Amino acid sequence: MEQGKFITFEGPDGSGKTTVSTAVVKRLQEEGYAILLTREPGGSKIAEEIRNVILDPANTAMDERTEALLYAAQRRQHLVEIVLPALAQGTNVISDRFVDSSLAYQGCGRHLGMDAVMNINQFAIEGHMPDRTIFLDIPAELGLERIQKNRAYLDRLDQEDISFHEAVFEGYQKVIRQYAERMIIIDASREVNEVIEDSYQAVKGILDGTR
Amino acid sequence: MEQGKFITFEGPDGSGKTTVSTAVVKRLQEEGYAILLTREPGGSKIAEEIRNVILDPANTAMDERTEALLYAAQRRQHLVEIVLPALAQGTNVISDRFVDSSLAYQGCGRHLGMDAVMNINQFAIEGHMPDRTIFLDIPAELGLERIQKNRAYLDRLDQEDISFHEAVFEGYQKVIRQYAERMIIIDASREVNEVIEDSYQAVKGILDGTR
Repeated sequence: MEQGKFITFEGPDGSGKTTVSTAVVKRLQEEGYAILLTREPGGSKIAEEIRNVILDPANTAMDERTEALLYAAQRRQHLVEIVLPALAQGTNVISDRFVDSSLAYQGCGRHLGMDAVMNINQFAIEGHMPDRTIFLDIPAELGLERIQKNRAYLDRLDQEDISFHEAVFEGYQKVIRQYAERMIIIDASREVNEVIEDSYQAVKGILDGTR
Repeated sequence: MEQGKFITFEGPDGSGKTTVSTAVVKRLQEEGYAILLTREPGGSKIAEEIRNVILDPANTAMDERTEALLYAAQRRQHLVEIVLPALAQGTNVISDRFVDSSLAYQGCGRHLGMDAVMNINQFAIEGHMPDRTIFLDIPAELGLERIQKNRAYLDRLDQEDISFHEAVFEGYQKVIRQYAERMIIIDASREVNEVIEDSYQAVKGILDGTR
């Protein structure tokens, strides 16, 4: 049986990843594509437990390297429990965030270095990188403005100040340069239906093998 | 102020690490030595939360690499919250288990490889290896016999079969060869008071700078 395609959505907070990926997948599923939409740590009890430790606003004493290791741990568990079994059955998998998020957030936002963070993530993913990545591009300030407007509850990372989110934004720019051949960059500062339409065309093209 | 010494107790399950380290530290504290006795993840709320995820017997779906990353994460947190602050204040720290446990349990018991496991642990500890390690040496069968006799509750790792514990035992033998200059090896198959006496002499020698 042919392996499914593994596609990720990436972008800073407030770029609209969840809204956009949900709309794109719904439309493609209605057209008959076999797609599993997932997000870290979705669907794995163990990965959820790990994420609860990471995001608990009470855990202010959490060291930055602890945080990076916990993200790698939940990624591993989500990958082996959810992503790889679906791909092996020929289902396409679209994940809202994956390893690029750690490169941007922990590697750059936390200043641990992209190489060091990639190193522990390679232990976790054993070479299972996405086939393609839809990157929703948005300036940090606009993303943060959107978060603060829309969310009643801010987790431990959302609460970080603007300089953290700016470093994450810079980090993502490094990531898209480093993995340019994998990236499809979409301007997410536009009206959401335009972003959904472009993302839909991109994912459909990947699944059809035309891009 | 002079840094404290960082000493670890290591050995397979049932080797008596907790009993022996507790007795040794009590005696030395009574003699006036400034010692903090700790064990991973002791004293750190975040590290305890991580350990609860690792050891929960319900988490049978846990992948071996997830487990190794979680151990590295709790190690990091315990190190920065408990061990390093004490050493910086001139207090000696004795830890019941540290990085050698991951080399033996995850590197060898789980067959992930000692180098790969050391690699993610280097991210966690940033070179903070113990000054010396007291290794309580015991054959796997005897250790397992002791565990099963003495413990009402077995955690997820204790429940592993004899072949896992044999691989851990083999792993520890590799560890003590690889880090021979750091190790003080004590025959822990003997009567416990003899093991305590030898361990006491060894630790006292380290603290006094005579070994």
